[in-house]
Amino acid sequence: MTFTDDSLALHTDLYQINMAKTYWDDHIHNRRAVFDLYFRKLPFGNGYGVFAGLERIIDYIKNFRFSESDLAYLQEELAYDADFIGYLKQVRFSGNIKSLREGEIVFGNEPILRVEANLAEAQLVESALLNIVNYQTLIATKASRMKQIVEDQLVMEFGTRRAHELDAAIWGTRAAFIGGFEATSNVRAGKIFGIPVAGTHAHSMIQAYRDEYTAFKKYAASHKNCVFLVDTYDTLKSGVPNAIKVAKELGDSINFLGIRLDSGDLAYLSKGARKMLDEAGFPNAKIYASNDLDESTIMSLQAQGAKIDVWGIGTKLITAFDQPALGAVYKLVAIEDENGEMVDTIKISGNPEKVTTPGMKKLYRIVNTINSHAEGDYITLDDEAPEEEKRLKMFHPVHTYISKFVTNFRAVNLHEDIFRGGKLIYENPSIFDMQDYAKQQLKLLWEEFKRTTNPEEYAVDLSQRTWDNKMENIREVREKVKQMEQPEKE
Amino acid sequence: MTFTDDSLALHTDLYQINMAKTYWDDHIHNRRAVFDLYFRKLPFGNGYGVFAGLERIIDYIKNFRFSESDLAYLQEELAYDADFIGYLKQVRFSGNIKSLREGEIVFGNEPILRVEANLAEAQLVESALLNIVNYQTLIATKASRMKQIVEDQLVMEFGTRRAHELDAAIWGTRAAFIGGFEATSNVRAGKIFGIPVAGTHAHSMIQAYRDEYTAFKKYAASHKNCVFLVDTYDTLKSGVPNAIKVAKELGDSINFLGIRLDSGDLAYLSKGARKMLDEAGFPNAKIYASNDLDESTIMSLQAQGAKIDVWGIGTKLITAFDQPALGAVYKLVAIEDENGEMVDTIKISGNPEKVTTPGMKKLYRIVNTINSHAEGDYITLDDEAPEEEKRLKMFHPVHTYISKFVTNFRAVNLHEDIFRGGKLIYENPSIFDMQDYAKQQLKLLWEEFKRTTNPEEYAVDLSQRTWDNKMENIREVREKVKQMEQPEKE
Repeated sequence: MTFTDDSLALHTDLYQINMAKTYWDDHIHNRRAVFDLYFRKLPFGNGYGVFAGLERIIDYIKNFRFSESDLAYLQEELAYDADFIGYLKQVRFSGNIKSLREGEIVFGNEPILRVEANLAEAQLVESALLNIVNYQTLIATKASRMKQIVEDQLVMEFGTRRAHELDAAIWGTRAAFIGGFEATSNVRAGKIFGIPVAGTHAHSMIQAYRDEYTAFKKYAASHKNCVFLVDTYDTLKSGVPNAIKVAKELGDSINFLGIRLDSGDLAYLSKGARKMLDEAGFPNAKIYASNDLDESTIMSLQAQGAKIDVWGIGTKLITAFDQPALGAVYKLVAIEDENGEMVDTIKISGNPEKVTTPGMKKLYRIVNTINSHAEGDYITLDDEAPEEEKRLKMFHPVHTYISKFVTNFRAVNLHEDIFRGGKLIYENPSIFDMQDYAKQQLKLLWEEFKRTTNPEEYAVDLSQRTWDNKMENIREVREKVKQMEQPEKE
Repeated sequence: MTFTDDSLALHTDLYQINMAKTYWDDHIHNRRAVFDLYFRKLPFGNGYGVFAGLERIIDYIKNFRFSESDLAYLQEELAYDADFIGYLKQVRFSGNIKSLREGEIVFGNEPILRVEANLAEAQLVESALLNIVNYQTLIATKASRMKQIVEDQLVMEFGTRRAHELDAAIWGTRAAFIGGFEATSNVRAGKIFGIPVAGTHAHSMIQAYRDEYTAFKKYAASHKNCVFLVDTYDTLKSGVPNAIKVAKELGDSINFLGIRLDSGDLAYLSKGARKMLDEAGFPNAKIYASNDLDESTIMSLQAQGAKIDVWGIGTKLITAFDQPALGAVYKLVAIEDENGEMVDTIKISGNPEKVTTPGMKKLYRIVNTINSHAEGDYITLDDEAPEEEKRLKMFHPVHTYISKFVTNFRAVNLHEDIFRGGKLIYENPSIFDMQDYAKQQLKLLWEEFKRTTNPEEYAVDLSQRTWDNKMENIREVREKVKQMEQPEKE
């Protein structure tokens, strides 16, 4: 028997439900819990990340409920008892979520989202939140890297056919837009997000007419704006000459925007095509290029003096080809104990980078008011107020001897309140505002953090109290393990 | 203004719609066209691929229609004229689709799908078809590679949090199941596809109880089957001893299935844990392992004598980490001309591998009836019937001097009829049958084609007539380009 796909509540790992079951049976499902969502390491060796995914998360949380078919599946196929099913039936997300806004510049070990909710609820939504943030943030970051390299030239997302299934195509292109891309080929993304769409024709149109000249003429007869794809048979001997011939014949009756190259030696062909277009009297016709482009091929083409004006990027962007996963995690940092007090929790690991930072925390960007550049980010405990300090000590959370004092600064709290008591209290900006916000925030960073190769490491520091609290938690766990090694004398 | 996301018809590249517009204006939108969907190169250096994606394609094609909001978007935002919108409004897919079945073993340059339809219709569905086939086939192939290495051990998909958005998580785990995986952690995939689901608890449960012993006890109090995660604080000093303590105390009141390792040196820890479990009287307790596993880490762990019984694979499977894109393309191979005759079409490229093979074609697997192994695959024109031949000449489509004659064989047509005249005439097998079919088909291959490193190249040959037809088409295009170089004397 199969069940209708009518809800996303089961878009989670089975262990979340199994833990919820234990918490329900043990009557601790409603204990207050705080989870931080963060990644440890920036992807692609980039010096910063660009957060995306919040709008999708809001939609998911707002609609979070187990459908009748979800409950039927859990009961009939997975044999959960009726009592627990009764609990799930009425579960909604009733907690608080703080989040960075989409387009925010983000770094390793920063709480992107902070989820405060009843233990079972917070656990049930984990997998979907990670699924969404990991992908969208990865692509927004990749797009921003590419945009840094092409600077003021246009860059368009063409990756639908290589995306990882349908959602990735549309949410990926939205993330790319936030990261700085100007347009997409995906019409559905244009429709639902308002992203500008772009595209002309494929090789198959040339093949359908079995002749470039005829195909270009026919296309021009039905479209005012024309970009002709010139590499179906032979770019410089056939494609470009035919495009020029049609553009000359039709003159002002069309907007001859340019030509597109999709294969071959793009440096050589673009220079040859540019010369032919200029000589034919079309100096304003642009050359669009695509074909497995990424940051390094673009830089190489630029270095070779390729005459490319507009970049179409598919596979390497939409799959984040050179590093197709961001490793964001979701860690319990505080929980209500049996007395109703919040206590901090920690996870230790053999790997020091993987030790979590306990406690309910806030995230600030420390901006120097004299040069308007960021000094670094600063993580504090919930009851600290660095915005009221005159002088901040910032020190490296691993190499603690690296420290500095900052005086002329603004401390900007980067978290927005999204849900409070399960109620949505945040309004999504437009994607244009998100893109613009990312651009503005990038201006706070010195160039050294933005270069695509070997960027400097941006400071993400812990306040003294956050650091002391972490050390104390580590000490407590070590004690406990030691006790386990020396079991109770009997 | 934004539009409701109520249809997948616009899940396509804009150029498809622009071409449809040209064809409509030129009254050739209903000309019969034939497209082949295929990839050129197998991913991961694997010796074979496993096809997946058909069920999703069937669903997409069956429901293909432009919604009112699609049409409103196209007219209001993209300014298509009312006449063309009127055409789109009534478009349904009315053509034929042949396809491999899901789980079929597939190789480079083989027509996976063959779409015969009105030109505009065939074009409008291209992008979604590629989006689906590229991802699902990539993951089914990756899964099959991994399954080859673990052989009879269980392998489970745990990748939801790292998948590229939501669709990839569920369709990816379905593809992994077809490729040989036994279970998934994604409950929604279990619900809608019937895939067995697996999972116990996370580190956060240990943190919530702030004590492993308590947490394991509580979990065991609400679940009969128990796998305890033992690496939250210290695997061998704390995690395994606590798991054993609880298993001993609870005895037969639970099924102590085993423990799970999710970090650290899996070879060392699994051997240590195995010894402790055996000495404690739990020789049947299994060791589950996860943590960024892929083919090479699994082989390395096997070589080190790691005592791992069950493998949980996330990131490296669900993102196809080492090669996150399959390059399937969709090429026009024949079209109806102005006289109503079907003519073959070709696309030439500077890159010889990218030259298409013209004509309506069939795909056969040639199975040796004496040893029951495949001799290779064989592509013919539509009116050939290799199943009626006594003796086949098979030759390499690039190195044509490599050839062989085959006599005792069965020629098995690999294409199923899926849609005919727009009507679905195919019934999806169960995913269990698909997985089983892939296993059976793999048995046809000699081991040399199945090894994960440097496999032999499997023969995908063209019939003599397919080859001759391709050469003739290339000659014709070359003539045409030559004429362009020597323009009409005026």
